[in-house]
This record gives sequence, C-alpha cells and structure tokens, in this order.
Amino acid sequence: MQVIMIYLTRRERFCSAHRMFRKDWSDEKNLMVFGKCSNPNWHGHNYVLWVTIKGEPSAENGFVMNINILKQVILDKVINKVDHKNINLDVDFMEGKIATTENLAVAIWNELKSSIEKEGAFLHCVKIEETENNFIEYYG
Amino acid sequence: MQVIMIYLTRRERFCSAHRMFRKDWSDEKNLMVFGKCSNPNWHGHNYVLWVTIKGEPSAENGFVMNINILKQVILDKVINKVDHKNINLDVDFMEGKIATTENLAVAIWNELKSSIEKEGAFLHCVKIEETENNFIEYYG
Amino acid sequence: MQVIMIYLTRRERFCSAHRMFRKDWSDEKNLMVFGKCSNPNWHGHNYVLWVTIKGEPSAENGFVMNINILKQVILDKVINKVDHKNINLDVDFMEGKIATTENLAVAIWNELKSSIEKEGAFLHCVKIEETENNFIEYYG
Amino acid sequence: MQVIMIYLTRRERFCSAHRMFRKDWSDEKNLMVFGKCSNPNWHGHNYVLWVTIKGEPSAENGFVMNINILKQVILDKVINKVDHKNINLDVDFMEGKIATTENLAVAIWNELKSSIEKEGAFLHCVKIEETENNFIEYYG
Amino acid sequence: MQVIMIYLTRRERFCSAHRMFRKDWSDEKNLMVFGKCSNPNWHGHNYVLWVTIKGEPSAENGFVMNINILKQVILDKVINKVDHKNINLDVDFMEGKIATTENLAVAIWNELKSSIEKEGAFLHCVKIEETENNFIEYYG
Amino acid sequence: MQVIMIYLTRRERFCSAHRMFRKDWSDEKNLMVFGKCSNPNWHGHNYVLWVTIKGEPSAENGFVMNINILKQVILDKVINKVDHKNINLDVDFMEGKIATTENLAVAIWNELKSSIEKEGAFLHCVKIEETENNFIEYYG
Repeated sequence: MQVIMIYLTRRERFCSAHRMFRKDWSDEKNLMVFGKCSNPNWHGHNYVLWVTIKGEPSAENGFVMNINILKQVILDKVINKVDHKNINLDVDFMEGKIATTENLAVAIWNELKSSIEKEGAFLHCVKIEETENNFIEYYG
Repeated sequence: MQVIMIYLTRRERFCSAHRMFRKDWSDEKNLMVFGKCSNPNWHGHNYVLWVTIKGEPSAENGFVMNINILKQVILDKVINKVDHKNINLDVDFMEGKIATTENLAVAIWNELKSSIEKEGAFLHCVKIEETENNFIEYYG
Repeated sequence: MQVIMIYLTRRERFCSAHRMFRKDWSDEKNLMVFGKCSNPNWHGHNYVLWVTIKGEPSAENGFVMNINILKQVILDKVINKVDHKNINLDVDFMEGKIATTENLAVAIWNELKSSIEKEGAFLHCVKIEETENNFIEYYG
Repeated sequence: MQVIMIYLTRRERFCSAHRMFRKDWSDEKNLMVFGKCSNPNWHGHNYVLWVTIKGEPSAENGFVMNINILKQVILDKVINKVDHKNINLDVDFMEGKIATTENLAVAIWNELKSSIEKEGAFLHCVKIEETENNFIEYYG
Repeated sequence: MQVIMIYLTRRERFCSAHRMFRKDWSDEKNLMVFGKCSNPNWHGHNYVLWVTIKGEPSAENGFVMNINILKQVILDKVINKVDHKNINLDVDFMEGKIATTENLAVAIWNELKSSIEKEGAFLHCVKIEETENNFIEYYG
Repeated sequence: MQVIMIYLTRRERFCSAHRMFRKDWSDEKNLMVFGKCSNPNWHGHNYVLWVTIKGEPSAENGFVMNINILKQVILDKVINKVDHKNINLDVDFMEGKIATTENLAVAIWNELKSSIEKEGAFLHCVKIEETENNFIEYYG
C-alpha cells in the first residue's frame, strides 16, 4: 500500500537580543570576524521560525499531527525560552555556543525532535529567518 | 549529456468555506478533536496554492512548460471548483473526505498529475497555505 | 504647548465564512449583483484587521495606550465573535446587515469605539483586508 | 495654477536591541507596566522605518526629491545610529527617553525634519513597524 | 443624518520597462541626475498599483462601488496600456513626460478620475510601488 | 562523527528589462509562443534572487560561510551585471540565450558555483521569482 507522506509547517516568531562574539577573542578580532553583529551592547531581531514535520495523515481525523499540539510543543520548548530574551544570556540551550543562526537552528532541532516523535510524526526541517534577506535551514 | 532539471512554481489563490468534522461523531467529540475548526456554521480561508512542476527546459523556447498552460490547468482542474465554494459541500474531489488541508493537498495532486504529464513535465509538489502560520506540502 | 499626536496600529486576523446576498432577492438577482460571492453554500476568507488609535504618549510610560490592552479589547469585542465563525449567521453585530466588508468595517468601528475612549485614546481607523487585492478603510 | 502635491515614501530597516523600563521604578513595577518588554537582558527587533516626504515634482527631472538623497539622509541621520545597536545605550537621540516605538518615532522625526526641508521638500510621516502586528505613525 | 464615508482600495500589478532620461540632455547629464535608472537599454519593474476610491455604501447592496466594476475600470484605463509594455515608448498617457513614478501616478489619476465618478464614487488616492523600498502617493 | 549540514540562503533583488523572443522567428510566431512577454519594446520585472549554499558551520565562528562574503560574491558575479540593465542586451552571461527565467537561473548558477566552492561551501539552489505568482528553482 502506498505511503502518503505529508509535510506540515508551523510558523512562530520571537523577538530577541543577541551578539556574535567569542570571549577568548579581542574586541578587534570580534569586530573583524563578526562585523557590526559583535556590538558589545547587543542588537536584536524579529526571528521567524518554521518547523516542518512529516508523517502520514491519520485515517481517523485527517491530520499528520494536531496543529495545536505542534504549536504547543514549539511554544514550550522554544518560544517561551527565547522570546523577549537575550539569546546569549537567557537561553539554556544556547549556553556556551556562538549565537549564530546556524547554531540556533541546530539547537532548536535538538529541543524539538523527541517531543514531535512522541506524537507519532518526524521532525523534517527547522528554518530560521533572521532578516528578510537571510535564513538558515537544518534537516538533522 | 547532463540533464538540466528545472523546477517551476505557479501560485494561485482560492477563497473557500470549510468545516472539519465527522458525521459519525457527536458535536462534543468533533469539538474536542477539531476545536473551533468544527464550527457547525462553517468558517473559511484565503487558501494559497503553489504547484511546482519539474522538467528540462525546451531547447526551442527555453520553457519547462508554458506558464499560461500551467495556469490554465490549475484553474480548470482546481481553482474553478473550489474558489468561492464550500469545500465540504461543493467540491466533487473532496466528497467523503475530512476537509483538512492534508487531504486537500493529496486530492489536488491527484487532480493535476495527469494533465501536467500530458504537457511533458512532472508534478513535483502541491503546497497549500491555510493561514500565514500553517502550510502543507505533498510530493506524491 | 505642542500636542504630540501618535497613531498606533494593531493587526489581528480572523478566518470566517460569509455570503453576500439579500433574502428578499431571487437567486438570479443575487448572482447578478454579488456574483460568485453569493454562493448559497458560503465561502470564506482570512480577514486581516488593522485598528488604528491615536492620542498623546503618556509622560509616565511613553505609551499612547498599552498595546496589550488594545489587543485584549480587539479580541473581546471583535475577534472572539467572528473568528472561525459565519459572519451572516453567528455574529450578533452583523445581524440584519449584508455581509460586505464595508458594512463589517462600520460595525467593528461601533464595537470598538467606546472601549478605546475608556482607555483615554481615540479610535482613528478600522481597516479590513478581504483578499490581498481588496481592502476597506473607515474613519468614523 | 494647481499644485501637484506628491507623497514619496522610502523604506529602510534596522536591527536593534532595546528594553522598556524606568530606572526610578522597581523591577516589579517595570514588569507590571512593560511586561516581557522590560527583560533586564534586553530583547530586540527588526524595525522597519517608512519616511514619507511631500512636495511638488520638479519640472526639470520629475522628482519630488531624488530618492538617493532621501536614502542618504535617512542612513546618515538614523540608520547608521540605530542599526545593530542598543536603542537605550547607544543612540544619542534617545538618551533619557523610554525606548517605546512612540518615542522613537518622534525622535526620528526630529532628526530628519531639517535635512529634508533643506532639499526643498517637507517631512510628512515617520512610520515604524516593531513587529508584523504593531506599528506607530507620527505626522509632526 | 450622518454620512458613512468608506474608502475602498483595489490592488493591481503591471510589469513594465522604463528609463529615466531627457532627450535634450547628454548621456553624462542623464547619468548624473538619474543614475543607473537612465540605462539606455532600459530596465524594468513589477509595479504595484493601489487605487483608493471613497463614497457611501449603497443601502441596496452594501457596496461603495462594485469591486468588479472598479477592477474593470483599472484594467481598461491603465493595466492593459502599461502591462508588459515600455512606459516611455508604448503608453499614450505618458507621452512627452519623464517616466518617474511621480509623473506616472499623476497620469494614472487623470486616466481614472472621470470613470470612477461616473460610477458615483470619488477617486481618493493613486499609490504606486516601484520597489519594496519606494512608493509614491497622489491625492489629486 | 555526525555531519551537521546547514543550508544558508541570501536574498538579493534586481530590476531589469527583458523580452522573450527568437530572432529567427516572425513577430507572429514570437507572439504566439511568448505572448505579451515578446513585446518588441521590452517589459521588465523586480526579480528576486535567493541563493542557497550548504556546508558545515565552522567550529571557530559558527558560520557556514560569512554572509557578507556570500553577499559580495552575488553582487560581483550577478547583481552588478543585471540590475537596472536589459537582460537580452546588456548581460554577458545571457548572450545567445532566450531570456526565460529558466535560462537565467541556470546561467546564474554557473556564474556563482566556483566562487562559492572557493569559500569552502557548496551551491545548493538558485531560485528566481519573476512575479509574485511565478518562480524557478535550479539545483545544478
């Protein structure tokens, strides 16, 4: 029997401060590598997060996964920890990591994976838009 | 010789009423599973549909498929049947199915597939956005 | 002393079914005047609502009006009554009116006006987008 | 002779950290009034700025104001001072003010006004979007 | 009795080539004043046009003006003349004018005004977006 | 050890004139195949270009590739050659090709590939949006 594989994406947003820098580098080196993104007094973004899961729609209700459950998982595991926070200082799952969007995408993937599998679906992609001109995707 | 595989996407929109529910369930059960989406008097959406086809561009005219033909196929097979209609009551290809976006994406794929192959291209993806925060993709 | 007049806009969204028709007209007349928008089985939209208020920012906190209060007023008075509902059948403040966006904008203005004035600001504009190509504005 | 009054709008963007709070208030009072926006470690936004000027198009070149000059004025007077900065700590024209979007709009108006008048046009509106759901307009 | 004044906006789009230059200026002077927009081989845009009309909604049908009539007026008077055309060479109502968006907005206003008044409404605003960062508004 | 494969996308825009036609066809044949896109006096678009690269984030700085370098490569190799130009007449890498978006995507891929590999990453996708309803993707 044919498998009907469906991809479902939920968008959430968070507004955070961050700074890209390494403590073990001088201000000059940080500025050289990270440019204005290393500003010592921080800057911030309206990050947009798309979480894509995949699975077969249930014969009973036609859903891959109830979107309200998916939304709640994303709020609990990610948004409530990063929204209106400082990614470098306030977010446990970013501790010790450079606050690039690349590292953020991988960390968010790790936060979400098992909760989505518990609901019988698979995490497919974490996409984060930092500005309208730049975004990152991670597929695990 | 190398194959040049190109993906072409056409966006169309439709404004429809729908309701998520099962006739064999009580109102309470429908409300529990489908939440406010089960409102007996319907609700509706500005659905956005992206149809992606793939193929090699013609040496003669540089097209994978003439976009006007692709547009006409989507209008004939899908938009004219769902736009300003009730997905549960008015759409032949959704008869007997729960009106989730998951089921709608699969049904639209089946409506489009052969017509696109007749034009010498392949259907690659049907993507449907229900709200700015939720979308479904189906790759066959 | 100079008045600093600030305009603050809050966006909210609602997904509703509706139908444009008059009970006292035949189906033919309704179709002639309202076209596909008169479909007897309803259709629907992702409506986007912008509510603009105006006032002087408070010297104490720098706000025209606390955005969370404005949001709550809009949810209580409008969104909770129209979202995932049928505008013709389920919405008390649209009873007896043709469900055009024009009439909806005026009705929403009337729902919001006094609650915003109670907070010490003035309602300036109600804007409703029905599709990406059409919107209505009402300034009282 | 009829005056041809044209309104020209230029959009620019800036990514900044900020925090809403008063030093003379306790953390509890700040939290009560400003909510999560008072987070001590800051948060941030992709602010979008629209500057609207008005004037008569030049008979010689058809412009109200050369858009490249308008852009340069906005960069010099505003964007270079706020982009990838902390609005509370790094921005001279916000010193001593609560970092609400209301106050920011008025301050940006004051930064831009005379430079635009020097070019023979009038500043008409400063609009700042903080998130996709909230924006502020100031008309002087 | 109170007048209910409603503003209705219709969006249409057109894709055109243009060039900003004066025949009586040297290439150097054109380049100095108009920059890259004076490229002799043309360039082009996806222009977005918003036409706002105002009036009182009809007691009979709840419309300021039937949106399909408004759309048809805009297509007949404007879009069919400029879409997939060269604004400098192909458009009668731009003959002899520098192809700035300012001049285009005024010319489109003049094309539309009487047709809208014939329908019992008033033309309120012509807005043209040239790029996502620049737009022009004209209120007559 | 697990490979962390990250996809980074940069958006740039260009405003160009073009025309779809073959010199060896009559005007009638060109009109029949390419429709209004064959207008002899050109038309144009605000093209949107997304360049997606992939690679492992650097342990040193957390980047797949410095976004400023990626941006500069895209400007040097593509944008500066096509923006405010005529794709048929002014762009060396489109010489002798029909100016379809399909052909443009392949040509841009070829322009970018080696420069991105020199930076230690891989070109993954070139996506070009011609209008809000049509886009092309090429994956090499």
